[in-house]
Amino acid sequence: MTQRPAVLIVQPHLAPLSDFLEPLYDVYRLWEGPPIEAERDIGAVIVAGEFSLDTALIERLPNLKLIACFTSGYDGIDVDWCRARGLPVTHAPGVNHEDVADHAIGLILAARRLISEGDRSVRAGRWSADAKTITPSLNGQRLGIVGLGAIGEAVARRAEALRMVVGWWGPREKDAVWPRAESLTELARGSDILVVACRADDSNIGLISGEVIEALGPTGLLVNVARGQLVDEEALIAALKDGRLGQAALDVFEQEPVDAGRWADVPNTVLTPHTGGATTEAVQGMLMLLMQNLQAAFAREPLKTPVP
Amino acid sequence: MTQRPAVLIVQPHLAPLSDFLEPLYDVYRLWEGPPIEAERDIGAVIVAGEFSLDTALIERLPNLKLIACFTSGYDGIDVDWCRARGLPVTHAPGVNHEDVADHAIGLILAARRLISEGDRSVRAGRWSADAKTITPSLNGQRLGIVGLGAIGEAVARRAEALRMVVGWWGPREKDAVWPRAESLTELARGSDILVVACRADDSNIGLISGEVIEALGPTGLLVNVARGQLVDEEALIAALKDGRLGQAALDVFEQEPVDAGRWADVPNTVLTPHTGGATTEAVQGMLMLLMQNLQAAFAREPLKTPVP
Repeated sequence: MTQRPAVLIVQPHLAPLSDFLEPLYDVYRLWEGPPIEAERDIGAVIVAGEFSLDTALIERLPNLKLIACFTSGYDGIDVDWCRARGLPVTHAPGVNHEDVADHAIGLILAARRLISEGDRSVRAGRWSADAKTITPSLNGQRLGIVGLGAIGEAVARRAEALRMVVGWWGPREKDAVWPRAESLTELARGSDILVVACRADDSNIGLISGEVIEALGPTGLLVNVARGQLVDEEALIAALKDGRLGQAALDVFEQEPVDAGRWADVPNTVLTPHTGGATTEAVQGMLMLLMQNLQAAFAREPLKTPVP
Repeated sequence: MTQRPAVLIVQPHLAPLSDFLEPLYDVYRLWEGPPIEAERDIGAVIVAGEFSLDTALIERLPNLKLIACFTSGYDGIDVDWCRARGLPVTHAPGVNHEDVADHAIGLILAARRLISEGDRSVRAGRWSADAKTITPSLNGQRLGIVGLGAIGEAVARRAEALRMVVGWWGPREKDAVWPRAESLTELARGSDILVVACRADDSNIGLISGEVIEALGPTGLLVNVARGQLVDEEALIAALKDGRLGQAALDVFEQEPVDAGRWADVPNTVLTPHTGGATTEAVQGMLMLLMQNLQAAFAREPLKTPVP
């Protein structure tokens, strides 16, 4: 029998981690079948935090020492449930918020300046000499940020360089140079562009409600780089279809991967496959924290980045 | 007979100007047929500066007082030829360089962070749970700007907010906080992203040559928001096809509108229909300068914004 610790990777898109883990650990992959023969050996599970953690799976692993989120977000994990079982959870904070903010700015420009639509139009041969596409300038557009955390602040700094006027709302007052709106609906009403950049948990599902979407209005642009569950997606689709909302640029969705058919006849959208925080550089930072947390857990040393 | 001055609009995409001109002027539109009966009346022609000015047409207008470029650029106009005939030329400087810079940033993000490609991928149902698209972070990418004029400086300021490292090259030394490369080829060799932001004239056709494109290299991104003629487009297409250049994001082309077929099998491109400077706000500024220049020309007063 091997003396090496064993780890279980849960989501298939994390498969590339195997190359880094296998020199140190016996690696099991859940999608290759439940690791029944190794249930007693597995000391850590490795997950992407946006996926709901299967607690039945966790309960079958008696010697589990760590739930290691590869990601910064850990909204799929019931941290209280884990804590009650003495199961520590780690994640990867502070490595990709700037890249997510870049992506938010890219989505704003792609939507407002019709870059994705222009690209489709040129390729389809629809560019004609008889008409010119005119787009709105970003100059002076009022940008409302929902959640002024690390991502929100990074979006705000970039938006100022692009001549936008920044406001924000979050449930708690914060020391910030940008004004906080009285409520989320007030923020939406006073914004041309609303960027969702807050953490998702059980308390804020559907935070961007039909009312908030209506307040943003027929010329408004909704950008989501946080989590799909924060937005009432049915209300969003309905508002886009009948023009009560101007545009949406989304990197995250209620169900991922999305069913393409769900968005096929929804106008004025830019859609990306949850790539906002997934840069080569950020992934390296996440990998480094993962390896440090695994090493610490198996050595019974203090964890590098436990969830707060 | 009318006592109102007469003007001739040359390009059909400028047709919407008619609404603003008709209260003051008799308006002729070249695409409705040559204004043979009005040749002696026409006092000003209104053109988009990126199109080559038909000097034969100009020579048939004996009482012409002004060639009014609606645009900032006036590369299609032989200013020396006009000057020799005592024909003043005006244009619309300083109204859209910030919007063009926004568009350049949008193109960089669309290309590097695969926003346009991701959008196509989601719509085509190619987003799968088994793999994750990883894109390069903009952090620390070396941005080379060709031509540090108003557009180039505006791009540089934005790029710094996005954590890029800025360098530039232009034919003349300038007082700038960013370092000037020894040559254009050296700038390309030392850059991950090259943004073409200089004025086009007869002296710099094909400035972005095959050699410059090769120096930018297999991971490099070429962005053009200036004029298509500045880039050797045949060399660019060949380099993209065989991987000697990584990506191109283009708002301008040798021939506009482009033939979609020309780009159909060219990989790793983002293409927009020359919309970089065409924002609602910029168009209003251009319209205001046009009206002021026309008024001044017909009143024989000093022109507001003659070309230098």
